[in-house]
Amino acid sequence: MDKPQDKNWRTKLHEIIYEADTPAGKLFDVVLLIVILASILLVMLESVKSIDSKYHTILNVSEWIITVLFSIEYIARIVTVRKPFKYIFSFYGIIDLLSTIPKYISLFFGGIHALAALRALRLLRIFRILKLARYLGASLRLLSALRASRAKISVFLFTVVIIAIILGTIMYLVEGEENGFSNIPKSVYWCIVTLTTVGFGDIAPQTPLGQFIASLVMILGYGIIAVPTGIVSAEYTSQIKKDENEEEKVKQPVHLNTQVCPNCSTEKHRDDADFCYHCGHKLNDE
Amino acid sequence: MDKPQDKNWRTKLHEIIYEADTPAGKLFDVVLLIVILASILLVMLESVKSIDSKYHTILNVSEWIITVLFSIEYIARIVTVRKPFKYIFSFYGIIDLLSTIPKYISLFFGGIHALAALRALRLLRIFRILKLARYLGASLRLLSALRASRAKISVFLFTVVIIAIILGTIMYLVEGEENGFSNIPKSVYWCIVTLTTVGFGDIAPQTPLGQFIASLVMILGYGIIAVPTGIVSAEYTSQIKKDENEEEKVKQPVHLNTQVCPNCSTEKHRDDADFCYHCGHKLNDE
Amino acid sequence: MDKPQDKNWRTKLHEIIYEADTPAGKLFDVVLLIVILASILLVMLESVKSIDSKYHTILNVSEWIITVLFSIEYIARIVTVRKPFKYIFSFYGIIDLLSTIPKYISLFFGGIHALAALRALRLLRIFRILKLARYLGASLRLLSALRASRAKISVFLFTVVIIAIILGTIMYLVEGEENGFSNIPKSVYWCIVTLTTVGFGDIAPQTPLGQFIASLVMILGYGIIAVPTGIVSAEYTSQIKKDENEEEKVKQPVHLNTQVCPNCSTEKHRDDADFCYHCGHKLNDE
Amino acid sequence: MDKPQDKNWRTKLHEIIYEADTPAGKLFDVVLLIVILASILLVMLESVKSIDSKYHTILNVSEWIITVLFSIEYIARIVTVRKPFKYIFSFYGIIDLLSTIPKYISLFFGGIHALAALRALRLLRIFRILKLARYLGASLRLLSALRASRAKISVFLFTVVIIAIILGTIMYLVEGEENGFSNIPKSVYWCIVTLTTVGFGDIAPQTPLGQFIASLVMILGYGIIAVPTGIVSAEYTSQIKKDENEEEKVKQPVHLNTQVCPNCSTEKHRDDADFCYHCGHKLNDE
Repeated sequence: MDKPQDKNWRTKLHEIIYEADTPAGKLFDVVLLIVILASILLVMLESVKSIDSKYHTILNVSEWIITVLFSIEYIARIVTVRKPFKYIFSFYGIIDLLSTIPKYISLFFGGIHALAALRALRLLRIFRILKLARYLGASLRLLSALRASRAKISVFLFTVVIIAIILGTIMYLVEGEENGFSNIPKSVYWCIVTLTTVGFGDIAPQTPLGQFIASLVMILGYGIIAVPTGIVSAEYTSQIKKDENEEEKVKQPVHLNTQVCPNCSTEKHRDDADFCYHCGHKLNDE
Repeated sequence: MDKPQDKNWRTKLHEIIYEADTPAGKLFDVVLLIVILASILLVMLESVKSIDSKYHTILNVSEWIITVLFSIEYIARIVTVRKPFKYIFSFYGIIDLLSTIPKYISLFFGGIHALAALRALRLLRIFRILKLARYLGASLRLLSALRASRAKISVFLFTVVIIAIILGTIMYLVEGEENGFSNIPKSVYWCIVTLTTVGFGDIAPQTPLGQFIASLVMILGYGIIAVPTGIVSAEYTSQIKKDENEEEKVKQPVHLNTQVCPNCSTEKHRDDADFCYHCGHKLNDE
Repeated sequence: MDKPQDKNWRTKLHEIIYEADTPAGKLFDVVLLIVILASILLVMLESVKSIDSKYHTILNVSEWIITVLFSIEYIARIVTVRKPFKYIFSFYGIIDLLSTIPKYISLFFGGIHALAALRALRLLRIFRILKLARYLGASLRLLSALRASRAKISVFLFTVVIIAIILGTIMYLVEGEENGFSNIPKSVYWCIVTLTTVGFGDIAPQTPLGQFIASLVMILGYGIIAVPTGIVSAEYTSQIKKDENEEEKVKQPVHLNTQVCPNCSTEKHRDDADFCYHCGHKLNDE
Repeated sequence: MDKPQDKNWRTKLHEIIYEADTPAGKLFDVVLLIVILASILLVMLESVKSIDSKYHTILNVSEWIITVLFSIEYIARIVTVRKPFKYIFSFYGIIDLLSTIPKYISLFFGGIHALAALRALRLLRIFRILKLARYLGASLRLLSALRASRAKISVFLFTVVIIAIILGTIMYLVEGEENGFSNIPKSVYWCIVTLTTVGFGDIAPQTPLGQFIASLVMILGYGIIAVPTGIVSAEYTSQIKKDENEEEKVKQPVHLNTQVCPNCSTEKHRDDADFCYHCGHKLNDE
């Protein structure tokens, strides 16, 4: 439908923007990554009062430059891709849009940092430049191990939340408001802080009984951290073994079925067997 | 003994309340879950002073509605079940009763939150609605791994407690009252806080010697966390392997050799094969 | 050498004190355990000012009763054992002595709590009463896994200490005295607190650069906790597998050597083979 | 090129300095290690104000003695090694130089502790004196397991950093400056502190929403600590298995069947056995 030449520059641009195999495509990705990192750094620096008050104009101009660059990239991506809507509503498409919009909105409503955090997600593109296959292979196997243990980890996390609610309520009753456990949600929060062995210490039990229960909570938390770790490492071990077994199976990929020879009644013939391996009689092929 | 029709509505109600396979049963479970979550949220909100003072009447009325709903459910469960006493004295039966009683008692003695925490335990019913078999299967295997490592984890936890007592007493002697280690129980509490890597920081060693011993405690704690994790993951790995071995045993217990049929040249015959499974020709037995 | 009757009561007492198989021996152990727990509780309570000032006399008398009981037990152990000196200088012998001495010394020099902590070690006797074999079997296998990974864990801990010294010195230079990193030993202490993910928070970096380095330290610590855990769980897994393999070997305990038949030159005969399995020729037995 | 005698003392010195097999070489290494430990202790003590003000002269003189000793050692190493430049620009060569220079510079510019931390790296020489082979063997296998899981751990750490940036920005928006989350870098720092379960508590969320998000962060951190642990332990397990498989392959690649000799009734012959290994009788081949 497009003229050949028009199609030509679009295909070329598509290659540069979406792929990382040509030198130009690689350069594009590296430049993009640096710009993303710079944009994240800018948002961070802007949030530091002392720096912002000193270099406000520089930061603001740089931010605008990056926003324009991102906008151009976003439009280029839409133009060069075959199915623009599929890109626009894809994970990266939405992230790409949301990382440019806040600056434009700030023109009318003042600075909103809320969506700036999403720029960090653009960093995920980094894996395309690194030796992709190898890194993704590694994380794919990891992901499949995590997916296999999803049900178990859900049960585990759900149990942790129930424990936190029960023990949090008990701690609220034992310690009370005067020791910082001012209400149940806060006590539950404290309980999660303790169970996960984070232990901020902004709230800490003061009564002997409270400290005794806290000790139990801590030892419990120390013990149950073994559970998700055990699950993931066991699943991952069996994942590795499966891969190894599949390699082995290539050498011997035969499956034996439960057919019985009509002549001598021996079992376990190969799926593709036409004759009994024992007496040489023709097998009934179903 | 009951009239057929009477038995009919009881069986029907039993199906709705105790099972989750019919649409009505599923709906009942989902509604129950929402009510339980709402009741927990209510107890939490009531404990927050600022919210309670503002919406006291609404919270109190909602609480009464939920308590009545729970009471009706409790009675319905007793009525519809075949052996009521078995239910009443079962784990869930006691939980169900204890989660309604406090509100009634509060009529005479004022608010008692103590048992409200138990409502969280009712959440365990959630697993019935989720794809039960799959989730329970996952946690059953996990439970059997935990049960297999129970003896080892007991030895481990007991050792941790003994270490905490000894090191706690030493820290009390080293740091003394002026640095917050005001008595041995508190020092033991601090030691558990440190060994489990929670580290609240409400008590922290101030003397150089105390900090040196604390460093040893921390490295020790950092090291021994490896033990329960190692136990669980090893047991769980061997649990998975056992399951796989059993599956494999069913599937293919026969060994295929590299013999080649002298007639049709097909490979991979069974070790005890006398005739080719493909053409029925006699195999050369060495 | 002793008169038969004398030997009799000594053997009997020995059975009661040192063994846990007879009802009397079991009772003795249970009573001993309760007394040990009571003695630890006493030392703990004495250290709590508010309790000690109120119940000083009761605590002191109880302490004396327990000390006398322990002394009697200690003497009984020496009298009934065959080789008294072996007991006296054994681990338990020394612990038993040290847990009675402090009270006697306190008569002349005032209270010394220092050795009271050692009483906790007496608790290790608990494993004798519990289903011993099972629990010890579990911990023996665990111990052998820990012993197998001792060299690796030493290397690991040594590396952690070197990292802590280097990063601690850097943090001292970056943060300086005004932010609590008042000297290098304290900085190293902070670094261990952070690496082990304990995080008391009594000292915390205040400068941006310090917080950046601290972030690296934390992620490092978060990462290296995987190492001892991985070691222990891998060793423990292979320990379990070894046990299983040994069970299997019982079915097939034959070793094939590298002997060569003088007649037909086939290799790999059984160690106890007298004739070649291939040609039936007599083998040269070395 | 050197005269035989000259070469002689150089070879001898080389043996003492670089090797640890001769008694003199071992002694040299032990003395060196003690001096290194002393030098680290000195730098630490100097940084403690109260000690430095009291013993300044002693510490300064000791420091000079050690610096001179290190310088002599450094020169001796250059003189005795065959390719001096290779040593000078090696890892240890640079460490050795940098651990002497600061003291000389301090003559002109005052005390600089910055490079003193590097002395700790000299401690790595310790492994040469310890039973080297065994310890290095242990850490080599560990290193290869870590290297095998490098790609996965990179992906993992990168994901942790991205999560920390996103959640840190969100926490900055939720909590704001008044609760200590004064800018995004600080919020990201807090997020890393929390994700890694360190939890200093110098900054802690105060608003209910902030505490709710913090709870999610903590549970997330508690969960993802399972990932690196699982990776390392799985890789390490498969590393151990590989080693064992190789050992086994050398030992017994033959399968023994349950045939029984018709003459002497011995069992367990090789699959391809035609004659009894025990009596030499012909075996019945099916």
